[in-house]
Amino acid sequence: MKEQIRQISIQLFAEKGFKETSIQDIVNALDVTKGTFYYYFTSKEQLLMDIHLSYIDALLEKQKAILNDGNRSSREKLYDVIFLLIHDIEKEGLSAKVYFREMRNLSEPHFSKIAEKREQFRKQIEAILVEGMEKQEFRKDLPVDIVALGVLGMANWSYFWFNPEGRESDRAVSDIFMKLLLEGLKGSQ
Amino acid sequence: MKEQIRQISIQLFAEKGFKETSIQDIVNALDVTKGTFYYYFTSKEQLLMDIHLSYIDALLEKQKAILNDGNRSSREKLYDVIFLLIHDIEKEGLSAKVYFREMRNLSEPHFSKIAEKREQFRKQIEAILVEGMEKQEFRKDLPVDIVALGVLGMANWSYFWFNPEGRESDRAVSDIFMKLLLEGLKGSQ
Repeated sequence: MKEQIRQISIQLFAEKGFKETSIQDIVNALDVTKGTFYYYFTSKEQLLMDIHLSYIDALLEKQKAILNDGNRSSREKLYDVIFLLIHDIEKEGLSAKVYFREMRNLSEPHFSKIAEKREQFRKQIEAILVEGMEKQEFRKDLPVDIVALGVLGMANWSYFWFNPEGRESDRAVSDIFMKLLLEGLKGSQ
Repeated sequence: MKEQIRQISIQLFAEKGFKETSIQDIVNALDVTKGTFYYYFTSKEQLLMDIHLSYIDALLEKQKAILNDGNRSSREKLYDVIFLLIHDIEKEGLSAKVYFREMRNLSEPHFSKIAEKREQFRKQIEAILVEGMEKQEFRKDLPVDIVALGVLGMANWSYFWFNPEGRESDRAVSDIFMKLLLEGLKGSQ
């Protein structure tokens, strides 16, 4: 039931917005009582926090597995992280929507906790870049933090435009972005 | 007075959100009557549309000037557009916030009109890329639309992190992004 509440809430929050969805809307959609809701969650905000935590924790865990994969080069790891983000936006579209749009409805200490985890995700991209610079897979003369933010921006922005039914798959978009990031746009002139 | 209403509303919408700000809040902040508000705007949504239009029209106009500058190479034009976006986020922070967060509160035909203008901005980045490919300033083997979305993502994402008081200026961040985009990350290995 907890998972059902979470799933229907993600749908409702994505459709109508967090503020515009009441606990009554949630329990109505599941045909249960408010008592059931309060058995699992203390408040609507705690539910929102729960959704945020599941989303970012799952991403962080997958990212950590990429980071620690001794069989992949740093370039491959960077590719894997870009694919992770774009694929996730495709697969978890509604959760991503709630994650990108409703974070501002978290109050403290919830907000800071999620902000910290988002930062951790960014820092782990930096770690891949640093590793790759040490192994000379990446150039060393660009500041790691700004490059990480550039990579993150490129991948995360796909949330606003990526269409799973579109011409290019999540895999194809990741390939193009990786080529662009690695080899650059420069032509022969 | 129209401009004052616009300015205070941008502030209030950015702070509290569009839905959470009433026309009463706006006129209270300016110490005028609702009559004054309705003299200039027919509704809160029309005001939001007005804010969106000013924001995107100003960007489109500057972008057009960049596009038509016969003295700049395509690479320079691409740089100019990246700087335009990051600089604008720095200069027009509150407007950018309203622009990025509140568009979903526009109803039709307003929403589509703004969506169309956003698309135009993207298409004009494509135009710079195509021009540069023809002049061999850019490589030709990557799909123009995805590259344009990557560039746009990198620059627009700075809205979420760029700090005018931070280590790198808008100019420096644009330089780093342009190097990354043009030359790529590849190291010697």
